[in-house]
Amino acid sequence: MLESAGVVVFALTGALVAARKRMDPFGFILLATVTGVGGGTLRDLLLDRRVFWIEAPSDVLLCSAVALAAWAIAYFKPGTLDGWGAKRLLIWADAAGLALFAVIGAQKGLAAGVPIPSAIAFGAMTATFGGIIRDILAGDRPMVLWSRDFYVTAAAAGAGATVGLAQMGFAPLLVMLGGLAAGFGLRAGSLLFGWSFPKLPGDDAPKPSD
Amino acid sequence: MLESAGVVVFALTGALVAARKRMDPFGFILLATVTGVGGGTLRDLLLDRRVFWIEAPSDVLLCSAVALAAWAIAYFKPGTLDGWGAKRLLIWADAAGLALFAVIGAQKGLAAGVPIPSAIAFGAMTATFGGIIRDILAGDRPMVLWSRDFYVTAAAAGAGATVGLAQMGFAPLLVMLGGLAAGFGLRAGSLLFGWSFPKLPGDDAPKPSD
Amino acid sequence: MLESAGVVVFALTGALVAARKRMDPFGFILLATVTGVGGGTLRDLLLDRRVFWIEAPSDVLLCSAVALAAWAIAYFKPGTLDGWGAKRLLIWADAAGLALFAVIGAQKGLAAGVPIPSAIAFGAMTATFGGIIRDILAGDRPMVLWSRDFYVTAAAAGAGATVGLAQMGFAPLLVMLGGLAAGFGLRAGSLLFGWSFPKLPGDDAPKPSD
Repeated sequence: MLESAGVVVFALTGALVAARKRMDPFGFILLATVTGVGGGTLRDLLLDRRVFWIEAPSDVLLCSAVALAAWAIAYFKPGTLDGWGAKRLLIWADAAGLALFAVIGAQKGLAAGVPIPSAIAFGAMTATFGGIIRDILAGDRPMVLWSRDFYVTAAAAGAGATVGLAQMGFAPLLVMLGGLAAGFGLRAGSLLFGWSFPKLPGDDAPKPSD
Repeated sequence: MLESAGVVVFALTGALVAARKRMDPFGFILLATVTGVGGGTLRDLLLDRRVFWIEAPSDVLLCSAVALAAWAIAYFKPGTLDGWGAKRLLIWADAAGLALFAVIGAQKGLAAGVPIPSAIAFGAMTATFGGIIRDILAGDRPMVLWSRDFYVTAAAAGAGATVGLAQMGFAPLLVMLGGLAAGFGLRAGSLLFGWSFPKLPGDDAPKPSD
Repeated sequence: MLESAGVVVFALTGALVAARKRMDPFGFILLATVTGVGGGTLRDLLLDRRVFWIEAPSDVLLCSAVALAAWAIAYFKPGTLDGWGAKRLLIWADAAGLALFAVIGAQKGLAAGVPIPSAIAFGAMTATFGGIIRDILAGDRPMVLWSRDFYVTAAAAGAGATVGLAQMGFAPLLVMLGGLAAGFGLRAGSLLFGWSFPKLPGDDAPKPSD
């Protein structure tokens, strides 16, 4: 359930990038699917579990549906998926996916009995991986890199809060909500209010246009 | 057999890119090998099977032989692997590898008992993956992205035809030939006659030179 | 032991790249960790072994410590991690990691009973993989590509010497030292004295600034 929500929002970000790159319908499907299931695939490979979307292909179908809907919008309503509004949708959907996968990754790591630092590393890696492969496939500079605000930090906070609350014995629902609040909250705060760590000195910080 | 054919043609594309980038002999070998075995490696990892080239290293040796032959040509016959002829060879070998791996991926997915949508997604992903990592390693924009014609579409068609014909009970040879015809035919049609989906409006379509 | 040394030096290269890109502390941690454990993760996935850092998270913690130390230096001593000195440290740490992972990869391949060509391919692939994902994540052209000198060659030599000496029945310590000497020696020779294969004719060789 939670996983499918994460898959869908990441698939949406993949479809938005495909729209910007003027790909064809199957290009949309590939980019949406790889972005949507990428992080969970890495997680399951690392845990040596059966990859989640293979047995239950509903997530692949969801990604395809999101992709085709986006292609239709881009085709029949030109310009809708361009510009500032689409860029903001991309960034916020990415933020939601980041928080969801950080929580799920940390939970699955704990459930598999991995040590605590690994469960946090796990959540943070799998939460950021989908966006990384989206941007690399699209030939863009990875968002994880040019983001001057909380990005990996938000993923780590979401995973860390999930692990911490679970260790303290909170009910699963509270663990999940706490993790989501920490991950999405930090990311949202940095997007809305510019929260960040103190910047490193130096002026060659990469910008989105680099 | 079929798999080795796919490995060799993808290895050839890797070697051609290495020639364009003026790499050294072991650079040729790395790029040829990673391109040749990349898609099948992803497929086997996802299916939790033993990775195909580890037990039977003949494919790795084939990739190395292709790479060294290409390096020798580039060294002793300068210019042979540059220019328009080499570019066309690259694109057509990539097309052959795409069709072969789409069919093999779909077949192996079916043989492993994965659901139908997953088998198709599988074939399409593993068919495109070798070329994706080749282009990323070479610092090029992935062909999957700038290709304005049928590319992912051809991979999906090859995988889809394979799955469809197999479900209809055709003999394995016919399934294979039908899958190859669908995949390679669509790609060839788009390369020769410009077949494609209707283009999305907008003028920022990336070009090979981007 | 040897593995942790390789993880630390590769983590250091990831942190140095993060410093150049002016990332935030968790960006440092992500880049250092992914670079440090990347090659070994690929190796363990291919061998279908439990991924090494999941059960024993000390390596993840080491990467994080290296990353935070580097961030602190970049923050409190601006300029220290820039410039020519840092570039040289990056290249030499990368060389050390390359040799270490070539030997470890080949050894683990042999221990898992894979055929000889696969064990060598293995060592070379896993030795170069960490640096490849570091450079791709950072949006840089992979060092493996623009390096005109012995790079993949050094990795293959280290893996090949390890496999050869092991086959000849030398003691494990000698196998290891021989592999390290071959891998690091070739790389060092090419960095210090410009050792390389004869260059391919043509003038479009990519440069670091490409």
